[in-house]
Formats: sequence, structure tokens, C-alpha cells
Amino acid sequence: MFPVLPDGVVTDVRVPASSANLGSGFDSLGIALDVYDDLRVRVTPSGVRVAVDGEGAGSVPLDDTHLVVRALLRGLEAGGVQAPGLDIVCRNAIPHSRGLGSSAAAVVSGLAAASGLMAKSGVRQGFSADQLIQLAGEFEGHPDNAAASVLGSAIVSWTEEVDGAPAYHARPLVVHPSISVTAFVPQHESSTALTRGLLPDAVPRLDAVHNLSRSALAVVALTADPSCLLAATADRLHQHYRAPVLPDTTGIVAELRTRGIAAFVSGAGPSVLALHDRRIPDESVAFASGLGFDVRPLRVAGGVSIT
Amino acid sequence: MFPVLPDGVVTDVRVPASSANLGSGFDSLGIALDVYDDLRVRVTPSGVRVAVDGEGAGSVPLDDTHLVVRALLRGLEAGGVQAPGLDIVCRNAIPHSRGLGSSAAAVVSGLAAASGLMAKSGVRQGFSADQLIQLAGEFEGHPDNAAASVLGSAIVSWTEEVDGAPAYHARPLVVHPSISVTAFVPQHESSTALTRGLLPDAVPRLDAVHNLSRSALAVVALTADPSCLLAATADRLHQHYRAPVLPDTTGIVAELRTRGIAAFVSGAGPSVLALHDRRIPDESVAFASGLGFDVRPLRVAGGVSIT
Repeated sequence: MFPVLPDGVVTDVRVPASSANLGSGFDSLGIALDVYDDLRVRVTPSGVRVAVDGEGAGSVPLDDTHLVVRALLRGLEAGGVQAPGLDIVCRNAIPHSRGLGSSAAAVVSGLAAASGLMAKSGVRQGFSADQLIQLAGEFEGHPDNAAASVLGSAIVSWTEEVDGAPAYHARPLVVHPSISVTAFVPQHESSTALTRGLLPDAVPRLDAVHNLSRSALAVVALTADPSCLLAATADRLHQHYRAPVLPDTTGIVAELRTRGIAAFVSGAGPSVLALHDRRIPDESVAFASGLGFDVRPLRVAGGVSIT
Repeated sequence: MFPVLPDGVVTDVRVPASSANLGSGFDSLGIALDVYDDLRVRVTPSGVRVAVDGEGAGSVPLDDTHLVVRALLRGLEAGGVQAPGLDIVCRNAIPHSRGLGSSAAAVVSGLAAASGLMAKSGVRQGFSADQLIQLAGEFEGHPDNAAASVLGSAIVSWTEEVDGAPAYHARPLVVHPSISVTAFVPQHESSTALTRGLLPDAVPRLDAVHNLSRSALAVVALTADPSCLLAATADRLHQHYRAPVLPDTTGIVAELRTRGIAAFVSGAGPSVLALHDRRIPDESVAFASGLGFDVRPLRVAGGVSIT
């Protein structure tokens, strides 16, 4: 039998939003953004109670099919502990289904809460960042958003096959201080599963070379030479396949890039992210606003905090 | 009419060898190595005379079909000057057709000599590094080796299509001081044109994602975290397609990687390069030596020098 967490233990988790791909770095590059979901979890004598405030309130399930709860239970299982009951309060600010990593943030927050409960009760050590990335990657199927939410800053992630199972890894970058971030967030949602289905199984070799050279350059641009951001975020592997179902998103990316701003589809969309070391042109802001997109200046965030 | 370079102007060029691809970074990543070709060029009243000492002596043509001469003449044309005659002395140490960038070095040395003659005579300014990379890339069709020979250190290069013509670019990296380089160089030569023909026009999307994540990681590994070198140099886009014609090379790469050493085919082979922060195991040295490969410790080199 697993040891039981004592009644009344509480942990607080704050997890940042994230953007994945950054244009060229499909399923690999990510960046954490300063919009946060907060989670408080308390061990109770019995039952699982979930309360959601903010984004997702009234639309996400409030039982153990809730993604945060599933991740929390998975974390307890992976840590080898059990809880007689859980009281979970979510205060969400990360918009759902906009390509800003809300599902990765939910998974990371649940796993981080499990880690916090184990560490605070003294029953087990908490998870390392590597363990959180692995467990979250198993939920997501790719580590880019989750690694950004765990580690903060910008990250390079990759997946290895070890004994037939995927092993997820990531390393953080030190983002150059002159880089600003702006998100363009529409009111409407998008389905990652749907847009992922639009990608072909085979791609031209020259497109693969195009993206691998730009994703290497992206690390240079993010850490040392922001003047390369436009070239470094150029993509030929995913965005144009999804363009037919994301016409407004695609138009905003094109508008910004024409004006020299390194813009790309945030994750699977529909949001657009721009990394820039000068002002976003007023014309681009007007263009995006005219299509109903909120223009949100953001900062690069630190990783998940557990207290 | 172009202005004429004055009789008797002399320039000396020293250009380093290079290795391209570094496993994951096909046609993009490169590193300069401390084996050098030296070139002395003097403006004479008439004719083109070429003398070659060292690698290539007796086998390369000694007229204006010689690659150094062709690059030199192209450089003078691009610079908008002419020479009544040229006396060219090559002292070559970079082995030919081994995947160590000898042809890129020849092109860069010729272009750099043209730059040196223009600058020293005061007839024109010399070329910038960007100009040398562009002109050399036009000879090579890809900028990776040439950019390493021009800039030195390790480089990220990329190619853009501008008005229907390729524009070649590169940025240098600061290589982590704990990284050592060892080349495994066979006696036999290999043809890049032949091995390039083995690559398919289309590749699995998952292989493209594999390499783009590793090439981004390679920048992290080369500059900040050598512990990632093995993962960062893993390739699925080119080496296995060429393996059938490079069995010994492939065997040495596998031998080293099994022992945790980040080894890969140097350029299009047949040499192997390893980047490492600990000793190459004796067993690997014996394995490579047994196949007739010289094991050569090398250092990361600076870029082309023009005096």
C-alpha cells in the first residue's frame, strides 16, 4: 500500500502560460508567458471537490475527469502516495484553446501540486524539473509547452525513444533582455487535435533543412542576437498546412512579418505571438484589432512555483 | 573598364578546414578546424601561374580551372577590378575529399585573396565577412563549410530565397571551452556529389522534427551545456541514407556514440568528427585505427586571415 498524505496539508501552485513552436521550432521550442493559473490543493478526509474561478469556469468538468485532477492523481501515483480526499481550487487566467498552453499549464499545475503535497507533508521528496517535464510530456505527447511552463524562460525540448517509450527532455535559454513579447488573442477557440490532423506525414527535405537551420538560429536570436528573430522564426513545416483553417491568424502573421516583426502562430493557434526588439507598428495593431484580436503585451515568465 | 590592380601587390591568406552538419544540423551547422591552407598571391604583368605544395600537389589542375584561381577571378570580378597577371602559390594541409571542407577552403581562400589584393592596393575596399560568405556560398550551393572557414568557431548558417536567387547567411557561436574535437580521417576519398545523390527528396515529418529539435539543442550544447552534445548531434535526415556507401565511417560513428561520444559523419564523409568533453575511449581509437583511420586531435579554429 502507498503511504497516505496527512489530512490538512495544503500546497499552492502558480504556473505560467506558454507558446510553442516559435515558427521554425515545431514541437521543440517554447517560451513561458506571464499569464498564470493558480491552484490551491488541500488534503481532505474523503472525496474530490473542484472549484474553478476565471477561465474555464462553468465549462470544464468538476470531477476527476478535470485535467488538473487527472494530472494531480497521476502525480500522486507516480510519487507513490495516496490522498483520502482532495479539495482543489483553480483560479485560471490562461485563456483556453487559444494556443497559449492552457492544457499544458493545467497538467503541470496538477503534477506540481502533487509534488508540493508530497514535499510539504514530508512523506516523499517532490519531483525534479526533469520528472515534471517527463510526466507532463506523457499527458501532452510533446514536451514543448509543458517544459516552458515548468522551467520558465524560453526552452529547447526534444523527445527520445527509450525502450519503446518516449523520454522528454528540455533545456532553458537565457532570453536576451531587449526581446519583447506581444500576443494577439482572438475571442474564438481552436482545436489542436483538429489542426494537427492537417499536417502531412512526409515533408520535402528542403523544408526540413529550412526549419532545422532556423530553429538553430532561433537559439542564437533568443539568447544573443535579436536582429535574427525574423529569419529565425520562418517556418515551412506546419503553419502553411494549417493556414486554410486559420485565415485571420495567418493574415496577422503575414501582416507583421511583412513589416519585419518576427510573428508566428502560437502553438496550434489561433493566437499569434510576436518576438520583437522594437515597437509593433500601429498599422499591425489596427489590422489585428480589426479582426477582433486582443493585442496583449506580455513578459517572459519564470517557471512553475510551488509553495 | 574595371580599374587594374598594380603590378607587385601581394596578399597572404590562411584559411581553416571545417566540418559541416554536426549530425543534426544538415547544411546548416559548421565548425572551423585548425588545419590550414595557405595562399600567397602576387599581381604580375601577365598570365596566371599556379604552384601547389602539399595536399593536391600533382593532382589538381594548375590553370584557371583550379578552384582557387576560379574563386580568385570571381572575387576580382565581384569587386570590380582586374589583374593583368597573377602568381599564385598554394601550400595545402587540408586533405581533399575527406569531408573536411577543402573545397570550401579553396573557394574562401581565392575570394579572400581577391579581397586582400583590393584592400592592399587601395583600389577597392576588401569584402566583408557577409560578402565572402555570399560569394563562397554561390560556389558551394550551401554556406555551412564556407561560413565556418570565413568566420571561424562554430556557426549556424541558413539560406534565403531573395528575388529567385539564394542569399547565404551565418552567425558565429562562442564554443564552450571544455569542448574538444577529434577527427577520424581515412586514407580514401569520397565524393560529396555522389553521396548527396543518395538523399531522398521527401522525408518523414517526425524525422524533420527530430533534427530541428536537435539542431536547436546543438547551439545550447556547443555554447553552454556540453552534456547535451550526444543528444544534440543525433541525426535522422542524412547519415543513414549514406551509410551503405560509407560502411567504415558509419561503424566508427556507431562505435563512438555507443560509448557516449558525440560523433557524426564530417560533412559528406568519409571522415568522422567527435565533439567531446572527456577522453575518447581507447577502444574507439583502436577500432578506428584498425579500419585505417588516422585519429587526429584538433582545435576549433579562428576564421580566415588576410594579410
